[in-house]
Order: sequence, then C-alpha cells, then structure tokens
Amino acid sequence: MTCCHDADGLDGHDTAFTVDASRVTFGRGCLREVGDRARALGMTRVAVFSDPTVAGLEVFDTVQRSLREAGLDTVAYTDARVEPTDQSFAQAVAFATETQPDGYVSVGGGSVIDTAKAADLYATHQADFLDYVNAPIGGGNPVPGPLAPHIACPTTSGTGSEVTGIAIFDLLSLHAKTGIAAPALRPTEALVDPDCTDTLPAEVVACSGLDVLSHALESYTARPHTRRAAPERPSQRPMSQGANPWSDLGSREALRLLGEYLQRAVTDAADREAREQTMWAATLAGIAFGNAGVHAPHAMAYAVAGRVRRFHPQGYPGDEPLVPHGMAVILNAPAAFRVTSGSDPHRHLQAAHHLGADIAGADTGRDAGGILAEHLIGIMRGVGMPNGLTGVGYTAADAQALAEGAWPQQRLLSNAPIDFDESLLAETFGDAMRYW
Amino acid sequence: MTCCHDADGLDGHDTAFTVDASRVTFGRGCLREVGDRARALGMTRVAVFSDPTVAGLEVFDTVQRSLREAGLDTVAYTDARVEPTDQSFAQAVAFATETQPDGYVSVGGGSVIDTAKAADLYATHQADFLDYVNAPIGGGNPVPGPLAPHIACPTTSGTGSEVTGIAIFDLLSLHAKTGIAAPALRPTEALVDPDCTDTLPAEVVACSGLDVLSHALESYTARPHTRRAAPERPSQRPMSQGANPWSDLGSREALRLLGEYLQRAVTDAADREAREQTMWAATLAGIAFGNAGVHAPHAMAYAVAGRVRRFHPQGYPGDEPLVPHGMAVILNAPAAFRVTSGSDPHRHLQAAHHLGADIAGADTGRDAGGILAEHLIGIMRGVGMPNGLTGVGYTAADAQALAEGAWPQQRLLSNAPIDFDESLLAETFGDAMRYW
Repeated sequence: MTCCHDADGLDGHDTAFTVDASRVTFGRGCLREVGDRARALGMTRVAVFSDPTVAGLEVFDTVQRSLREAGLDTVAYTDARVEPTDQSFAQAVAFATETQPDGYVSVGGGSVIDTAKAADLYATHQADFLDYVNAPIGGGNPVPGPLAPHIACPTTSGTGSEVTGIAIFDLLSLHAKTGIAAPALRPTEALVDPDCTDTLPAEVVACSGLDVLSHALESYTARPHTRRAAPERPSQRPMSQGANPWSDLGSREALRLLGEYLQRAVTDAADREAREQTMWAATLAGIAFGNAGVHAPHAMAYAVAGRVRRFHPQGYPGDEPLVPHGMAVILNAPAAFRVTSGSDPHRHLQAAHHLGADIAGADTGRDAGGILAEHLIGIMRGVGMPNGLTGVGYTAADAQALAEGAWPQQRLLSNAPIDFDESLLAETFGDAMRYW
Repeated sequence: MTCCHDADGLDGHDTAFTVDASRVTFGRGCLREVGDRARALGMTRVAVFSDPTVAGLEVFDTVQRSLREAGLDTVAYTDARVEPTDQSFAQAVAFATETQPDGYVSVGGGSVIDTAKAADLYATHQADFLDYVNAPIGGGNPVPGPLAPHIACPTTSGTGSEVTGIAIFDLLSLHAKTGIAAPALRPTEALVDPDCTDTLPAEVVACSGLDVLSHALESYTARPHTRRAAPERPSQRPMSQGANPWSDLGSREALRLLGEYLQRAVTDAADREAREQTMWAATLAGIAFGNAGVHAPHAMAYAVAGRVRRFHPQGYPGDEPLVPHGMAVILNAPAAFRVTSGSDPHRHLQAAHHLGADIAGADTGRDAGGILAEHLIGIMRGVGMPNGLTGVGYTAADAQALAEGAWPQQRLLSNAPIDFDESLLAETFGDAMRYW
C-alpha cells in the first residue's frame, strides 16, 4: 500500500490527499428511486438526458415514470452524442438554457452523463465554452459555484462518470480529445442499477469492463500523491492527485472483482451475479480514478480512437470507423504497464495478484511487468479483444503518429509513474502492436 | 463478501444500499488547509468549536491562525463538554444562535464534533430540542434542509464523527444516551491530520483505537442490508442500513490496519507510522459504520459507561467515575461476537483473519466465534485493557441491570445480526465479566 508516513513535504511535494465521492445508491431496481430522490433534492422541473438508443429502452421509461409519479415536471433531451464533441455539448447547453430545468437526470453511458454535466455547468454559470476546459487547450477557469443537482444513472458497467467530476469531449477544431475537470461537475447522486446491464451485448460488457479494469490499474500505479508538487492553494488540489490510500482501496477491490467476474459477465448474459459484480467494480474504480487519475493507457487511447481508419467492432450500432473507448485503452495496457513497472515493481506485481495471477516464486524486480502484462493479455483473449493495435488496423509505421497524437494528453501523462517522452510513447505503441 | 445478486426483494426486504461520504483530506500538516478550505466553502464568519483541553493545545492555535490568515472572522466556543448532554448542546446552540456564524469548524474528539453538528442544526433550522432526536425518545423529524458548512478536524484517532451524520448525547432527564442521526449532519469536509495524535497518551490511543476496531467489526457483522425491510420512501433509507459491499470494504481495511498497527501505536508514541495508520483506520471505519451502523457492543457500552461507580482510567483528566467510550465498547465485544457468530460464522472468521488471527485449519461453524473472541482478547491485553467488566467495577450481580440499561438502544440492537432480548443481553453481559 501507499504509506503516508514518509511524506513530510520537505521538498515541496504534497503531504495530504483529498477525496470526494457522490452519494451512491447501488442495487437491482434502484432506478425506481429516482423520482423520490429528485424530489428530495428539491427538483421540480427535471431535464432528463439520454441518447437515441437508450431513449428507446425500458430503462428510460422507468426513469421518466418514476419522475412523473413523484409529481415532477420533465423535459427530455435524447440527442446526447456518443463520443460527444464541443458542438454536441453546445446543443445540450442550448437546450438547458432554453428549458431552464432546476435539476438534471442522466440515463446512459459516460457520453450521456458527461453531456448532462456540461449542460448543467454552462446553463448555471454561463461562460465562453473554452473558459472551463482543461488548460492548456482551454482556460482551466475554476467553476465559480455549485451546479443544479444532477442524478446520474449509468446504463453500462463502464465509465464511472457517475462518480467523477470529469466530462470528456472532442474539440472538433483541434481534432483533440479533452475535457472539463472540476469537483462541482460530480453528480450529486448516482443510481447504479445492475438491471441495466442484463441486456448489454457481450462486446459492450467486454469493452466497458476493460475500461474499468484499466481505471483500477492506472489509479493503482499512478505516480504516488506524495510525489506531486503541493498545490498553491490546498483547496485546489487536483482530482488527478495520484495514487493514495483511498484510491488504492477501491482499485484493489475492483481488480479482485474483475479478475473473478469479468469473463463470466462477458460470456454469459444470464450470469446476473457476474454482471452485477462487474457493475459494482465499475463504481469502485470510478471512485478510485476520480480521486487519483489515470495515466498512459488512457492518454494513448485517445490517439488510438482518434486515428482509426476502417475498424468497426461487433455489437456496436452503425458502421462508421470506431474503436470503443475501453478497447482503445486496453490495447495499450500490457505494453504500457511493462514500461511503468520499473517505477514500483512490487505494486505492479500486487496488481497482477489482485487480478488473480499466480505470483508465487516471482522475482519482483525482474518479473513484475511481464507477469502483469501476460495476465492482462490472457484476460483480453478470454473476452475476445483484438490482438493488439494491428487488430484494429494499425501497423508499426503508425507508432510515431500515434505518439504525436497522444503527446498533448499532458494532464494524463504527467500522472504516470515514469516520464514519458514522445520517443518512449512511440516505442510503447510499437510494443502494443501484437500480443500473441 | 456480501453479495447482492440474491437480493430480489420479493419479501419486502431492501434491494439496494445508499452510501454517503464527506470530502476527506488526510495527511500530516493538513490542518493548515482549514482557512483556505473554509473560504472556498464560502464561510466569512466562522464558529470554531473545541473543548477546554484541546483549546490549550497547539493544534487549536494552528486552526485559528489558518482561518485568520485566510481573512475570515472567527468566534470561538471552547466549552464543548466531553460526553455531551442535551444541556451542553443547548448552550452551544445558544452560542451559535447569538453569534450567527455562517460556517463551523470543530477541533477535537467526537464530543466536540457532535456539539458543532448540534449547534449548526438548531441554529439553522430552529426547533424544539426533541424534534430531531431519534425516535422513540425524540420525534425523529427529518432535517428540513442543508446546514451551514462544517469542517471537522478530529484530534483523536477515534470516533469517526468527522464522516458521519450522527451526534450522540446524554438526555439528562431520562439518564439515557441517545442521538440525532441525519445525512445533513455529516460535516461538509473532514481534515484528518495525524500530527494531532503524536501527543496523545497511550491510554487514549488504546481506547479510541478499540472503539474504531469495534466500529469496523460491528459494521462488518451487522445484519446484511438485504435483510432489512425496504424503506417506505427510498430517499429515507436509514444510514444504519446494515452491512453492505461498501461498508465491508472500509471495515476489512480498517481491521487489517488495526491488526498491524494498533499495538505499536499504543506502546510507542514515537512510532509515527503506526499512529498515522491507526488514524487512517479510524477514518475508514467511520465511513463504514456511518453507512452500515453498529450494533450490540455499542448498545451495551452505553449501559456500561452510564452505570460506572468508581472506576477512572489512567491517562484521562479529572477523577470522576468514567469508563471511556472505546473501553466500554470493547469490554463487551468478545462476549457479543461469540453470540452473534452463529448468524454468519464465515464472516466472523474472516474478520478474525483480517485482524491477523491464524485461521488455518479452523472449523468455521464450530470455531469462528471463539477464534474472533480470543484474538480480540489478545489485542485487549496487548494494549492494557481491564479484564472484562469486573475490571471496571461490575460484578455478575449487575448483569441484569446492565441489560435493562442497554435495552432501550433499539436502533442499535435491531442492527445486530441476531435478535437480542433482555435475557440474552444479560447473559452476554455475564459472559463479558472476565476474559482471562
């Protein structure tokens, strides 16, 4: 574990960590609580956010009905874009500004929840769009006050957005994936109902589950919070503060649960226990990375997803080129953790152990990165992931361009336990091309 | 672990659990953040609560100075009573009503933090004192809205009050220990600075650490949340909702840390690592029991503390009869867990394992309660606890009266995994008289 007793901050490093978590309700059927909870939060006119797919599902009706039964007025916005952009955020903001809700309920994956966060933010504290966007792309201005209450209802066991203060989008003019990160963006409550995952296609469970797995692994192996410079003002300690005892706890449990349940959840849609435990792992990993931050595999993923040429996965609607976020993340993970393991071999070996790897007799210094990478590769094969980046259409010749694409993700790269430069990124992309 | 997949609620039992946690900052020196954080919460005129002992310590100056340096106006209330009463709460409320602060900072043990919660509650939402007190003694009325922001700074590694929505006091007219429990009472932030514990007497570290240990054990062995009747309105699911996967996680880690560090923290004040990890365990156990609830050992403790005749422990100021809260709790614990182990022997055995007991070769059904009890007794001896209730002046002849004293604690007793009636309570008190 990260121990804090050696952190006396003599060298200007941080000596404390700050953790936040939303109110979380977890359990089958809990979406039916949304009306009562919205009313208890003082909502009277609720903007219900979703996307065109989820809006056609029973879960969306369940939420709308619960809100109406609680006597609340609702307005629906079902045009949230999967992989949102500044443009799609702006449309949602326009809707919120026009309809003037006093509360938000989001029903969907991370894209929907992030869209509701953005709508709530800009409708409550009007500003030029770039003002709140992470520096250096945006102004990185602090959010000046609380937002209207927001209840997030995730329908995938994936992003963890329901418990984080982060909203991710593509800035179209720069072809860059960036985001807004502020504690005020964290939804007031999360309602996590495993019933939502019963009907998810296996491929979606696999990709979102591997995103979760990487949230846990990246939080666990992030640069320790005591090696980050102390913030100028303590109340502005970043949410991506690095690994800490709190995030370690959630990460370890998420790894243990995923090691035990993820493959079952993917291969058998009727395995309710496995789908439920995978969703609980997603919540725990979300709480962990929301208070620690992710690093290299996520930074690299944005380039992988952004430069896709032809690949389109099974189980995902449409036919446009697409590498699902979780797939884009996990394809880099074995190569990235091989490289980062030198920073703290013991921690990387323990991560493999929590995931279920046999580490008996391992030579920690020599074997940690390899054992973790091989175990991850076994999990990826077990749930049908492509064989590295070549499996989604890249070749060794793309490594340099991918590195250039990942390089702007400095917020994430600086949270890695080792220093990545562009050349190490290119080398790591090269190692991620093929795993078996 | 508590698994949730069998919880379909067909019989009216609850199917979900709801967890809340304050913003928590943990680390050496973090009390110096209080001014910046108070200002960030919008405070301008801060009521600083403490007790006469803590008000004389450096920690109190540190907090006052930080608030002033942040440009905030302060008013100090240093008369919080250790073991507060309705009368001492009323004095604090009068102070708050008169001085009209827009924020609260509490610096002290659980008594100080609870006093600040009460002052904030009644100064913000005026009412007859009994209106918010737990039923059946009080009206149990819901708190009608949010309170003024409150930053809690615990100075012992003990009560966990900094992360719970509970305030405990003695109702003098009934000679009864009761409390107020509402999510709104949970402090807005907790600043947990292990520097505070460096100067604590060994006896205080022992008693408060054993209170923490029992928070973790009681949360872990509480009646599972799926065996509690579903609440009429989901937004009113009680905080004492029973064991759940979230509280299990904090409980297990707290047990592991205490098994490793508590004795070191007690016997060597210079062991900064041990004192720090004990304080982190207190925070985790506080988050766990704040979302699960405690049961029999705490219910019994109120009778033990309330009927003390002559005992006064070393390391505590004054000379009036006193059984410190943590001591009163732990003296019942081995006897209580022997009785409750039948409800879930596996869980009780795992608890012993997390605390460091050797459970190899144990026959779970037959041995769980005994192994946990014997391991606890070993820890108690290691940190200098009295030998059962006789060690604080009780005799077998008191068992019935103690049972009658504990019986009104129905909120806690109903959270136990087995049904305690008065006769079983008396029997358990009898078993708690002498342990070695």
